[in-house]
Amino acid sequence: MTIADRWLLPDGVDEVLPERAQVVEHLRRQLLDLYNCWGYDLVIPPMVEFTDSLLSGSGSDLDLMTFRITDQLSGRMMGIRADITPQTARMDAHSLRREGPSRLCYAGTVLHTRPRGPLESRTPISIGVELFGEATVAADIEVIELLLQSISSAGVENVHLDLGHVDIFRGLLADAGLSADSEAELFDLVQRKAARELGQWIEANISDPQLAGWLNVLPSLAGSVEVLAAAREKLAGAPAAVLAAVAQLEEIVAAIAERNVTVYLDLGELPGYHYHTGVVFAAYVQGYGKALGNGGRYDHVGEAFGRPRPATGFACNLKSLVSQSANNYAAKQGVFVAYSSNPAVTEQIAALRSQGERVVQGFDRQQVDYNELNCDRALVEQDGSWVIQKLS
Amino acid sequence: MTIADRWLLPDGVDEVLPERAQVVEHLRRQLLDLYNCWGYDLVIPPMVEFTDSLLSGSGSDLDLMTFRITDQLSGRMMGIRADITPQTARMDAHSLRREGPSRLCYAGTVLHTRPRGPLESRTPISIGVELFGEATVAADIEVIELLLQSISSAGVENVHLDLGHVDIFRGLLADAGLSADSEAELFDLVQRKAARELGQWIEANISDPQLAGWLNVLPSLAGSVEVLAAAREKLAGAPAAVLAAVAQLEEIVAAIAERNVTVYLDLGELPGYHYHTGVVFAAYVQGYGKALGNGGRYDHVGEAFGRPRPATGFACNLKSLVSQSANNYAAKQGVFVAYSSNPAVTEQIAALRSQGERVVQGFDRQQVDYNELNCDRALVEQDGSWVIQKLS
Repeated sequence: MTIADRWLLPDGVDEVLPERAQVVEHLRRQLLDLYNCWGYDLVIPPMVEFTDSLLSGSGSDLDLMTFRITDQLSGRMMGIRADITPQTARMDAHSLRREGPSRLCYAGTVLHTRPRGPLESRTPISIGVELFGEATVAADIEVIELLLQSISSAGVENVHLDLGHVDIFRGLLADAGLSADSEAELFDLVQRKAARELGQWIEANISDPQLAGWLNVLPSLAGSVEVLAAAREKLAGAPAAVLAAVAQLEEIVAAIAERNVTVYLDLGELPGYHYHTGVVFAAYVQGYGKALGNGGRYDHVGEAFGRPRPATGFACNLKSLVSQSANNYAAKQGVFVAYSSNPAVTEQIAALRSQGERVVQGFDRQQVDYNELNCDRALVEQDGSWVIQKLS
Repeated sequence: MTIADRWLLPDGVDEVLPERAQVVEHLRRQLLDLYNCWGYDLVIPPMVEFTDSLLSGSGSDLDLMTFRITDQLSGRMMGIRADITPQTARMDAHSLRREGPSRLCYAGTVLHTRPRGPLESRTPISIGVELFGEATVAADIEVIELLLQSISSAGVENVHLDLGHVDIFRGLLADAGLSADSEAELFDLVQRKAARELGQWIEANISDPQLAGWLNVLPSLAGSVEVLAAAREKLAGAPAAVLAAVAQLEEIVAAIAERNVTVYLDLGELPGYHYHTGVVFAAYVQGYGKALGNGGRYDHVGEAFGRPRPATGFACNLKSLVSQSANNYAAKQGVFVAYSSNPAVTEQIAALRSQGERVVQGFDRQQVDYNELNCDRALVEQDGSWVIQKLS
C-alpha cells in the first residue's frame, strides 16, 4: 500500500472541494426552497433499508445498481439506496398515509454499483420531487414544470425536453396476446428504431393488419411537436388508451409551450418501460451526454406497501446540474483578523460574524495566504479604532 | 413477505418526516452558515471510499463500525463511511494541499454496522468541522467554542462539557517501559476508576514510587474546574508533557469561562485514546444519554496520506441536536389555491411563489385537507379581484 494508493478514490466516486461545494450547497437550498414554494414537503429517508422495501416493484435495473450489505442485527439483507423514489413511496403509503395528494421532495446521496453510463458518477446527489395521489395529467404537468424550473434556477440554458408515454406501445399491444418474450423482442426493435427488422418481425408475428400498421409507424413518430398531429392521423382508430396517451402529451406540450425549451417527442422510445405507467420525460442540454433530470409516472409504486396510489415525479443529479450551470455564484469572501488576545478584537469579530460576515482569525506567528483563506478584507487598527480594509 | 414486513426499517435506521425534516434542514443551514462565518469551507466527501483510505490510522473502533462492499469495477474493498474525519484528512493532505491552516466543515449521512449505544441511530447525519495545520491550543479552543455555539444555535441548554487530555496518561507512561499489554491493562483500570484494583496492579507492576503515586491519583482527578489545581499539586514533578497538558486544559477552561456551560474534567477518562493525541472533549445535556457532539486532537491523522498535519475538530449528529432542541422553529405555512385554468390565477400563483410564499394548487375535484397541505391561507376571488384569506 503506497501513499498514492490511499489518495485514490474508486472510479466514478467523486468528492466536491470548497469552491464547487459552495455552489452545490447554494443550489441545493435554492431548489429545496423552490419545492417548498410549490407545496412539496421535505423528507429525509434513510441511506439503507431492507432490500424487500428498497427494491419492491422497481424492476431489475435498480436491482443491479444496488449494493447489498448484511444487517448485523437481524441477519437480513439491506440495500444502500440507488434511488430515493421507492423510499418516498413507502413513506407515502405507510409513514404519512395522507388522504389527499401528497407532495414530497428530497435531496440526498445515492450509490450505484456501476456508473449508469460513461463518465457518470456512482455517488450522485439525487434531488427531486414526488407527487402521490393524483392521477390526472395536471400532476404530470406540475412536476415537469418544476423540473424545468429547477434546471433554469440552476442557470442551465438551451434545454431539450424528451417526452414519451408508455401507454402508446402498451395500449397497442393490450389485446395482441403476445408472450412476454415476444413483447420483449418487439420492444427492443422499436427502441432501436430498426425499421426493416421491425417490419420483418411484425410480418411474421402480428396477423392483425391494422395493428401491424400502427406498430410499423411507431419508430417514425419521433421529432418536434408536429409528431403529435402525425400520431393522431396514423394511429387513428387505435385503442382508447393509446389515444388518451396522445391527448395527455398534447396537454403537456400546450402547458409548457411558453417555456424556453425545445420539446422532442418520441412515441417509440420508452426509458424505464417496465417501471413507468404513463408519461416519461428527461431533460438534456447540448454537449452533455447524460440527462440532467428525468422522471415520469409510475402509478403502481405504492402497491408493495399496500397502497397503490397514482404517482409522478422526477429526480436530478445536483452535481450534474452544477457542472452545467452558467451561474457565477460565488459566496462573499471573508475578513481576516490577525492573532490577538485583545478583548476589543474578540468583540469586533463576534459582531462581524453576527452580521453574517465570514471572519477568519489568524494564529500566533501564522504565515497568511489570503487566497487560501478566501479573504478579501482585513480588520486592522487605525488611529486607535478598528476598520475593515480591502486587501489588494 | 407480508406488506408490514416491507414497511419495517432496520433497527436503528430512522427516517425523518416532513415537520421534523424542516427543522433538521433549518438547523443544517444555520450550522453550515455559522461554520462559514468562522472561516470553515464546506467540502462534500463521497459516501464510499476504498477501505485503505477510509480506515487509515483510525483504530479498530471505526473498523468494526464500517460496512464493507466490493467495488465491482476494481475488485477492491470499499467501505461506507462511518466517520467523515478521515475523509477530510485525505482531502487536506492530498486534494487541497494548503500551506497554512485549513478549516473544513461538512454535513452528511454516515452509516454504522451497529448502534454506538442503546437507542443510537445507525444512520446519523454527521455535521462538524476540522482544523488542520495548527498545533497550538488556540485551535482546540476555536473548535470547542464552535461546538458550544453549534449546540446553543440548536437551542439546547444546560450543556455539560467533558474535558480530558490523553497526554496526561500517555506522558506519565512515556518512560515507564510497559509492554503494550500491560499498558492496556492499566488503561482499562484507570478508565474504570477501579481504585483498589488499580492500586494492587500498580504495586505489582510499577517500581518507581513517584510514578506509582501519580498513577494512583489519576482516577480521583475528576470533577469541576478545581481538578486542575489539584492536578498541579498532585502531579508536581511529573514529565513536562503531563504538565503541558494540564496547562492546555487550564487555557481552555479560561477561554470558555464566560460561556454558560458546566465543565467537567476527567484526567483519567480517555475516550478514543488510541486515536487522539491531545485534548479530548464531549458535550452532554441532562436527560440524554449520548454525547451531543464530541471531538479532540488527532495530529497523526494525515500520516497515512503522506502529510501528518496537526488536526483538531468535532462532529455532532444533526438529528440528535434537533431531538434536544428547545427551539420552536416552524416554517411559514402556505396559501391554498383551488383548481383553476384561469391565467389570472396562474399569474397570482407565480407572483406569490416568487415572493417566497408556499402556494399549493389543488387538482380538479380534490377533497382538500388544509392540515395535510400545511396551508393556513387561501387565495380567493372577491368582488372580481384576488385576495388572500386566513383559513379558520
